[in-house]
Amino acid sequence: MIKTIHIVVFVSFLILGCSQDQEGKLPAHPSLSLSVSEAQEVVAGLEKYPLLASSYQELKGAADGAISADIEVPLPGEAGGYAHEKHKQNYRDMKNAGYLFTFTGDTAYAFFVKTMLDEYALLYPTLGPHPLSAKQKPGRLFHQVLNESVWLLNTAQAYDCVYEWLKPEDRQKYEDNIFNPMVELFSVKYAEAHDQIHNHGMWASASVGMIGLAMGNDEYVERAIFGTKNNGTGGFLAQVEHLFSPDGYYMEGAYYVRYAIRPLLFFAEALERNRPYMKIYEFKDEIIKKAFYSMVQMTSPSGEFFPINDASVSMNILAPGVLYGTSVIFDRYGFDKNLLGLAKIQGEVYPNGAGLKLAQAYAQEPEVTEPSWSSIEFVDGDDGTHGGFGILRSGEGKDQTVLAMKYGGHGLGHGHFDKLHFMFYDGGEDVVPDYGYARWVNIETKYGGRYLPENNSYAKQTIAHNTLVIDGKSQNDGNRKAADKVHASRHFFDVSNPEIQVMSATTDVHYDGTSLQRTMLLIEDQRLEYPVVLDIYRVESEKKHQYDMPIHYKGYIMNTNFEYAGDSQVQKPLGTSSGYEHIWKTAGATVTSDAMITWLDGHRYYSYITDVPSKSEILFGMTGANDPNFNLRNEPVFITRTSGKDMVFASILEPHGYYSLAEESSISVHPTIQELRVVGHSDEGTVVEVLGAKDLHWTIMINNAVADADAEHTVDFSGETYSWKGNFKVIQK
Amino acid sequence: MIKTIHIVVFVSFLILGCSQDQEGKLPAHPSLSLSVSEAQEVVAGLEKYPLLASSYQELKGAADGAISADIEVPLPGEAGGYAHEKHKQNYRDMKNAGYLFTFTGDTAYAFFVKTMLDEYALLYPTLGPHPLSAKQKPGRLFHQVLNESVWLLNTAQAYDCVYEWLKPEDRQKYEDNIFNPMVELFSVKYAEAHDQIHNHGMWASASVGMIGLAMGNDEYVERAIFGTKNNGTGGFLAQVEHLFSPDGYYMEGAYYVRYAIRPLLFFAEALERNRPYMKIYEFKDEIIKKAFYSMVQMTSPSGEFFPINDASVSMNILAPGVLYGTSVIFDRYGFDKNLLGLAKIQGEVYPNGAGLKLAQAYAQEPEVTEPSWSSIEFVDGDDGTHGGFGILRSGEGKDQTVLAMKYGGHGLGHGHFDKLHFMFYDGGEDVVPDYGYARWVNIETKYGGRYLPENNSYAKQTIAHNTLVIDGKSQNDGNRKAADKVHASRHFFDVSNPEIQVMSATTDVHYDGTSLQRTMLLIEDQRLEYPVVLDIYRVESEKKHQYDMPIHYKGYIMNTNFEYAGDSQVQKPLGTSSGYEHIWKTAGATVTSDAMITWLDGHRYYSYITDVPSKSEILFGMTGANDPNFNLRNEPVFITRTSGKDMVFASILEPHGYYSLAEESSISVHPTIQELRVVGHSDEGTVVEVLGAKDLHWTIMINNAVADADAEHTVDFSGETYSWKGNFKVIQK
Repeated sequence: MIKTIHIVVFVSFLILGCSQDQEGKLPAHPSLSLSVSEAQEVVAGLEKYPLLASSYQELKGAADGAISADIEVPLPGEAGGYAHEKHKQNYRDMKNAGYLFTFTGDTAYAFFVKTMLDEYALLYPTLGPHPLSAKQKPGRLFHQVLNESVWLLNTAQAYDCVYEWLKPEDRQKYEDNIFNPMVELFSVKYAEAHDQIHNHGMWASASVGMIGLAMGNDEYVERAIFGTKNNGTGGFLAQVEHLFSPDGYYMEGAYYVRYAIRPLLFFAEALERNRPYMKIYEFKDEIIKKAFYSMVQMTSPSGEFFPINDASVSMNILAPGVLYGTSVIFDRYGFDKNLLGLAKIQGEVYPNGAGLKLAQAYAQEPEVTEPSWSSIEFVDGDDGTHGGFGILRSGEGKDQTVLAMKYGGHGLGHGHFDKLHFMFYDGGEDVVPDYGYARWVNIETKYGGRYLPENNSYAKQTIAHNTLVIDGKSQNDGNRKAADKVHASRHFFDVSNPEIQVMSATTDVHYDGTSLQRTMLLIEDQRLEYPVVLDIYRVESEKKHQYDMPIHYKGYIMNTNFEYAGDSQVQKPLGTSSGYEHIWKTAGATVTSDAMITWLDGHRYYSYITDVPSKSEILFGMTGANDPNFNLRNEPVFITRTSGKDMVFASILEPHGYYSLAEESSISVHPTIQELRVVGHSDEGTVVEVLGAKDLHWTIMINNAVADADAEHTVDFSGETYSWKGNFKVIQK
Repeated sequence: MIKTIHIVVFVSFLILGCSQDQEGKLPAHPSLSLSVSEAQEVVAGLEKYPLLASSYQELKGAADGAISADIEVPLPGEAGGYAHEKHKQNYRDMKNAGYLFTFTGDTAYAFFVKTMLDEYALLYPTLGPHPLSAKQKPGRLFHQVLNESVWLLNTAQAYDCVYEWLKPEDRQKYEDNIFNPMVELFSVKYAEAHDQIHNHGMWASASVGMIGLAMGNDEYVERAIFGTKNNGTGGFLAQVEHLFSPDGYYMEGAYYVRYAIRPLLFFAEALERNRPYMKIYEFKDEIIKKAFYSMVQMTSPSGEFFPINDASVSMNILAPGVLYGTSVIFDRYGFDKNLLGLAKIQGEVYPNGAGLKLAQAYAQEPEVTEPSWSSIEFVDGDDGTHGGFGILRSGEGKDQTVLAMKYGGHGLGHGHFDKLHFMFYDGGEDVVPDYGYARWVNIETKYGGRYLPENNSYAKQTIAHNTLVIDGKSQNDGNRKAADKVHASRHFFDVSNPEIQVMSATTDVHYDGTSLQRTMLLIEDQRLEYPVVLDIYRVESEKKHQYDMPIHYKGYIMNTNFEYAGDSQVQKPLGTSSGYEHIWKTAGATVTSDAMITWLDGHRYYSYITDVPSKSEILFGMTGANDPNFNLRNEPVFITRTSGKDMVFASILEPHGYYSLAEESSISVHPTIQELRVVGHSDEGTVVEVLGAKDLHWTIMINNAVADADAEHTVDFSGETYSWKGNFKVIQK
């Protein structure tokens, strides 16, 4: 599976470069992410560039706080517990102090790093494998070796900063007692994990490479770059090559890439500084640039990453890797207003030469505005053939409307059974959210902050997402290995008309014997206050199935156009498996025509109107069943349930009106759109009509055959003939 | 019951004043809240005072938007519906336009007011009583006459502004067709409601008085001031006299006073301008000042009103009456830094002469900080003998810690069965909240925005609050008439030591045959990160009862020191009446020693430790049962349940640590305090011990006898003798 073409080209290049430039040279220190001359420039720029000055002051405040406190290197402890957090704080403190030493020359900072390393040099050799690891590979300081790589990657930079100041015998002591044993652990004992294409492998190789560069140990550096077998099947280049699709999409999702991009960027930058002939920033058609840009576009208008896969719903572009990247990418790939916009939200720059350039440009820009990303589709898979991820955007800034659909690969161990799942952001809220992970990260009393059992039993399951569930089972029957072998497929993506943006994707490999096609449109109309989502989900099946269409929402139900019966006296779970066991049934209804549900979320109303086949059910639910340890968040969902063979689920989601409880003001609790009708569907096309107040009458035609922007289509439904050219047509009357 | 002393004095004063100053004078227009000379000063000050300028620009923007849109005066409709909101918007638009006409002299604004009044003059005579009132007295434009008073109070000011510009025949038309019929409705047809001491009566009398002043109709003004019987038993003065306790506390709570204070201040100010000899601002020892200051102190650190009684949890100091009051109170009662602080949060001043003065002072102040209110106790009842409301505060600004306890009267129809109930604010969150009301105000699809049935069945009940529930029944068995006859009592309130603040209250009239005493302390200790709450709730009873101590919280359970069994497969309500039927039981435990529960709310952990008598239960619950229309919010609670006769429930609530999901950072998930012990209690005193890490050891002694700051107390418990002087003693070791 692994393509090696880029690596092969690159290896020959590297060997050539190596013979030319590297003979007998010892690296000047520091050289990993900051140099002495760069530090002088930064200090000189503090008065001129406010963004740089505030970043520097924050760094200095942290370093000064650290060196004035007692040094403590505790015995290892529980994940998320005191010792765990203390060892994390220690590497941050050492790196900050190393930087401040480089900026100021004040040996108090260097002495702090030395004293702490002395303590680690005493402790580390006494430690065996951490006894409290669960399923993870144990480190010695931490319950999992991953955290130890993070420790080393940071400490390598601290060491780099004080290297010249240290006595040779101290250097020898730290290398013998800490760094060499760590490299041994990461790249010999766990050689397989080091070489595995995974964010953990990225951390392992980058940390080995960083300490190798700091120590002047070329063997470590080569191992980090080319893998433990020194053949490019593992190591940093293989990670960079295979973790990203050709346009930079990361199969594990944005939450993980913001974590993986930290070692990637730190080691890439260290290589650029120490092995410039490698031209690492040009590798694989500038894949590092693409990876960064892909990541920062996988975000809500408020800057939170789309929480697909095992992701936190709160992680955002303030994460350290993104902060570093904004400065480094600006420096290495050139001016971009959107990077200034990112820096505006982040409120800081990285305190080195790259951050200096960014702060300069920021100060010179007449008006810096928040980033305005455009609609975009990312392909998935390292060769770009494993489906993708589509993002439709409308409007500007935090009030942007965003519709995102996931139709790529599964995403390895952190993948969810969520193909053709969508998320919708509007009015600054995640209106139709992804649950993210079931985890209270770093909270010791919550299973040591690890993934909780409910992550597998609920968060990963199909019903936890906004996509069709067939026969109450998850896609690929919840089997990760089966899911990893397949992927959904792109059908078409067309954002040429900003008022009618469309994306369509398919799969026939996630539920046996079924073909699914989801087409989602983001449509503007001057009679509507905000863009609306039109969702056309077509199912083909030879056999009869139960179909559940869940919509997760936030807030409270304000209105329905049908009667429902609340489960008021007794509440039971919606099912017994596939995640249904975690959803209390709170109410239910039988509906026979267009069903409308209006809820309130933040300051806006949202109405969902779906054209149900006769005698469908609407089920209302709330997560939290079979959750005896209060591990889940309690969030509401409604599910349209019907059964049949071939079918189109068409629905529309309209944001409207305004509500403020503080102002006691309510405007337009009723939507403009009133009716939705599936006129017909065939292998050629689907036709849907939408009707509303103000004489709103839309006809939407979708191509169900092979995607082709030029093909002509004609279908006859209910005595009417519909013709169009290309993948879709929308008539707005 | 009604004391008339102030009114009697005042009436003689008024008659005197009247004969001296008022002969033959016609008021110059406008004169209610703005004059022509004042308007000129405001305009002249726009360039100098940014706060005034932005307020003016906002007003102008609203007025310009209104006059450029079509005028629409719809037929009356459902509460919260389109027509309802439109009539509200219309009075706002007319008032804004009237003000702009006064500021600019631009007749386009005056013409707008005229044209709209023409429409109302056509419509109003055709209307009978509004057909969609529920239990309320119907208006004609609105489903309840209250809204119509609001309409008139605002429209009177618009009319006042354009009065001189209008032709006499137009004035006659509006008075004949709109204003006189409205006054007839408010003060003749509903004379009883007009004179009733209630916020509705305040609105009725103030609106009648305002239009009376605008029209130059002295009879209306007198009626408004002295009531429909013209004897001071009703009307504005009686409202001001009896709605507030001697220190300005309003028995219906802050949510209602922010509504009642609007007509109070507008009419008071109009009287001061038109009947200055009344000296209304001196009435009842400056009760208007006290009412305002009491109101703005009944707030969380973020400026939301304590949501006691039927209150919205979101209503805050941006409410129009508070905005007007900040300017007027500053103008009439003089400089106060806290008023500047309020203006800072509000971000605006009222655009008249009072706002001009406030904006001037604001611009001259070197640094305006957010208001810093102090600990304070308010007495309840118009003679101040009906218990009270205590507020303990520690710290500054939005991160202030606030502990509030309610021990006054019931509060009429909007009262809750919540005596000795507390609320706790910390870290910018309402950590132990009051549910407020069960209502989606102004949302037409939610029962027309009215109070919902669940307001009576849940929100008013004792279990919806943070106070003891005996035998699963609400105080006074949920009978409002019984509750209105009694009140809780002050015991002592001592904030002389800012590190140990204490309040204590009692009642023996809310549960038959029981005496309750709740003593709450807000304690600082340098070993603790934040002030903690110590709660000592003593019960005496001859008979055995079931005791439930509910703590409502927000967020998620992170830890307990006991095993509990989740109600994972089936969820049932906690009971069948008194509000218990609305709480799902989510988990339960049997505990035999100190129980500790830690939850996460915002960025902080909170640990509750309670010394349970042997074999108690801890019940976890979530609101939402027996709620077939999704009317309730879903909020968690835990309840300590035990049974017995005499008993002390002692508990401590400790805020600690830090959590950020976005930063994936967790600090100190475990509290410092570990144990709490009721050493003993008697009619003389209660002794409690608190133990924790860092050798923390406190002994707390509380006086249970008659409050007396000088009395000596000695008690013997478990062979130890405890002696102290005064109402309490805390030894911190």
